[in-house]
Amino acid sequence: MALFVHKYGGTSVGSVERIRHVADHVMAARARGESIVVVVSAMSGETNRLIALAREAQASPDTRELDVLLSTGEQVTIALLAMALIERGCPATSYTGSQVSIMTDTSHTKARIMNIDTQPILQDLQKGKVVVVAGFQGVTRAGDITTLGRGGSDTTAVALAAALKAAECLIYTDVDGVYTTDPRIEPKARRLDRITFEEMLEMASLGSKVLQIRSVEFAGKYNVPLRVLSSFKPGEGTLISYEDDSMEKPLISGIAFNRDEAKLTILGVPDRPGIASRILGPIAEANIEVDMIVQNVAEDGTTNFTFTVNRSDYGQALAILEATRQQLEARQIESNDGIVKVSIVGVGMRSHAGIAAKMFDTLAHEKINIQMISTSEIKISVVIDEAYLELAVRALHEAFELDHPPVAS
Amino acid sequence: MALFVHKYGGTSVGSVERIRHVADHVMAARARGESIVVVVSAMSGETNRLIALAREAQASPDTRELDVLLSTGEQVTIALLAMALIERGCPATSYTGSQVSIMTDTSHTKARIMNIDTQPILQDLQKGKVVVVAGFQGVTRAGDITTLGRGGSDTTAVALAAALKAAECLIYTDVDGVYTTDPRIEPKARRLDRITFEEMLEMASLGSKVLQIRSVEFAGKYNVPLRVLSSFKPGEGTLISYEDDSMEKPLISGIAFNRDEAKLTILGVPDRPGIASRILGPIAEANIEVDMIVQNVAEDGTTNFTFTVNRSDYGQALAILEATRQQLEARQIESNDGIVKVSIVGVGMRSHAGIAAKMFDTLAHEKINIQMISTSEIKISVVIDEAYLELAVRALHEAFELDHPPVAS
Repeated sequence: MALFVHKYGGTSVGSVERIRHVADHVMAARARGESIVVVVSAMSGETNRLIALAREAQASPDTRELDVLLSTGEQVTIALLAMALIERGCPATSYTGSQVSIMTDTSHTKARIMNIDTQPILQDLQKGKVVVVAGFQGVTRAGDITTLGRGGSDTTAVALAAALKAAECLIYTDVDGVYTTDPRIEPKARRLDRITFEEMLEMASLGSKVLQIRSVEFAGKYNVPLRVLSSFKPGEGTLISYEDDSMEKPLISGIAFNRDEAKLTILGVPDRPGIASRILGPIAEANIEVDMIVQNVAEDGTTNFTFTVNRSDYGQALAILEATRQQLEARQIESNDGIVKVSIVGVGMRSHAGIAAKMFDTLAHEKINIQMISTSEIKISVVIDEAYLELAVRALHEAFELDHPPVAS
Repeated sequence: MALFVHKYGGTSVGSVERIRHVADHVMAARARGESIVVVVSAMSGETNRLIALAREAQASPDTRELDVLLSTGEQVTIALLAMALIERGCPATSYTGSQVSIMTDTSHTKARIMNIDTQPILQDLQKGKVVVVAGFQGVTRAGDITTLGRGGSDTTAVALAAALKAAECLIYTDVDGVYTTDPRIEPKARRLDRITFEEMLEMASLGSKVLQIRSVEFAGKYNVPLRVLSSFKPGEGTLISYEDDSMEKPLISGIAFNRDEAKLTILGVPDRPGIASRILGPIAEANIEVDMIVQNVAEDGTTNFTFTVNRSDYGQALAILEATRQQLEARQIESNDGIVKVSIVGVGMRSHAGIAAKMFDTLAHEKINIQMISTSEIKISVVIDEAYLELAVRALHEAFELDHPPVAS
């Protein structure tokens, strides 16, 4: 009997009525002869309610105790879902992270899964039960409760699917799949039937917030096919897996973008070894994450160094960089928090030349100035003025014919 | 260092503000050099909220899953209290029932404690930590979460005090101790400094709802001194322990009463062996609890049999008894749901004659008719018309001089 892991997020289990809907959903799959393990999040709003209580008790909550507190959110959901299943005549058993021994390291609030004891789950499945597991939580070897951090329920689902060798891990969410770009910007955006792990990682990290990056990495590492689909409307969703011969092979799969960027440039830095770390070291020490980094040699034996940070870190990063400029006796700082990053993503560009040229041509045709370029094997990103975001996305969507399903090559 | 177990009920931890107040309270005791284990209930209202969710998911909730759900209530409180303690610079660690291995049988929603692993608690205490344990919950040998039923947090506290050989188990509640009778009926009612376990059991089962009977039984069995006191106002409360020489020895300690009773009499039953079980068997099968039972032989070779039940079971009990009357060919049924039970309780009556006579005299003097009498070693109960409840309680309170502290004998 094929085994599937379903994961339902907070919105899908946001009320008992919705939990009953999830129960119907699970039973329909079971009626098709599938063995099912369900991973659920806390009911929407519950985690925030608990965090507010914690902050009232302790200004900066103790992380061990915070995990004890937050883990109750999913524990409530597993019990309610198991009840709703049993009410419908479907045998079901719930497990907390501790009970099913989702063993993690001791990093409270951001623990990593080390091992899962699949025995109790396999025994229940053999008895024909649906197994309901609390997402987001685990337990240390010493018995302390841990949580996996934001998006942790996706990680739980993927880890269980890997440990149980499930056929697929189905992530039910409030969108019905992964799109070629954001449909709010390009109404012609098309749902992708399939996408590779690598493409998904680039799409996710670039701002298509469908899945948590860590769970995609995990799924890729253990080769667990992931499917993103809606818990509210029917459909096949988008399957995320490794490239195979039967797959559609478009040049590019989608267009991602990120509005939350700001750009900082330090000009006229003496060009010698160690400059990059002199510039970025203090930024990293302030816990500011750097996204794109570009360095060019200028004409006078100095170099210009540009990087982008999250817009919320812009002011702090600027102050740090000014101090660095004085130390390095660099000429000048230029900065801009009115920029966006637009990226085209696709494994197809590995084997096709001219993708970058086509992207730049398209933007030039629309008179959009490119301020920064960064490339990886399956992605090309450009930084442009934020005023041109929509125009750029739509022009690229059309140029790469993303509104039509690709012809198999 | 003397070890004390504190227990705070739902009202005492009903908000984060009150939880901070509990933290202050615990730290004051710790500052006196005491080692402290704290047992807490769910925040008031939380258990009812969870039960409502459960009923929405399943008409008659699966008991295993109900325990998974309900146990989150106390888990929230332990985390918040530990945080509040740490915030104040007091090292603290929380434990769920599973984590501290409060091992129970498998009777979900009304489990009984079998064993407690005190090692982790003792280690934390040695490190100078306050240990915060979730009341009301335990775990089976198979790892399933259980709850102990109503008042279970008191039971947890007493069981921990017994296992840890604590000096005292302090039950903090919204009353400041055990009174000679209900102060709303007799304003002269006096807080008792001490009372014996046996007296407390009689007082509790007779309607003075300060402590759960099971926890008092447990405390008596393991000889754990219990102290009932208020978490809102200072005071010594009432110590519940075994009788010892230094104890005040009043004739009676208090007057209990129960308004929720109804009386049923079957008259003219053929007097032969097995009659009592023929009458009470069907009542028990209907899950109706019987309180007082009195049987008298009548003159004509028949007997009259009277018992009391909770007023909410009156109608059902009457219908059952009518069927029994027809089978037994008994003469007649008399019944009355306008009665109350008033009891005087005291270990002193063991060694003093004339207590019963004094009680009956006092009631006769007030022209109160006694409909039923039942006695035990340390208690005398009478059933009277409900109209005379207040009069009877006040007259007895005065007759036995309960408004004055007794002189040590």
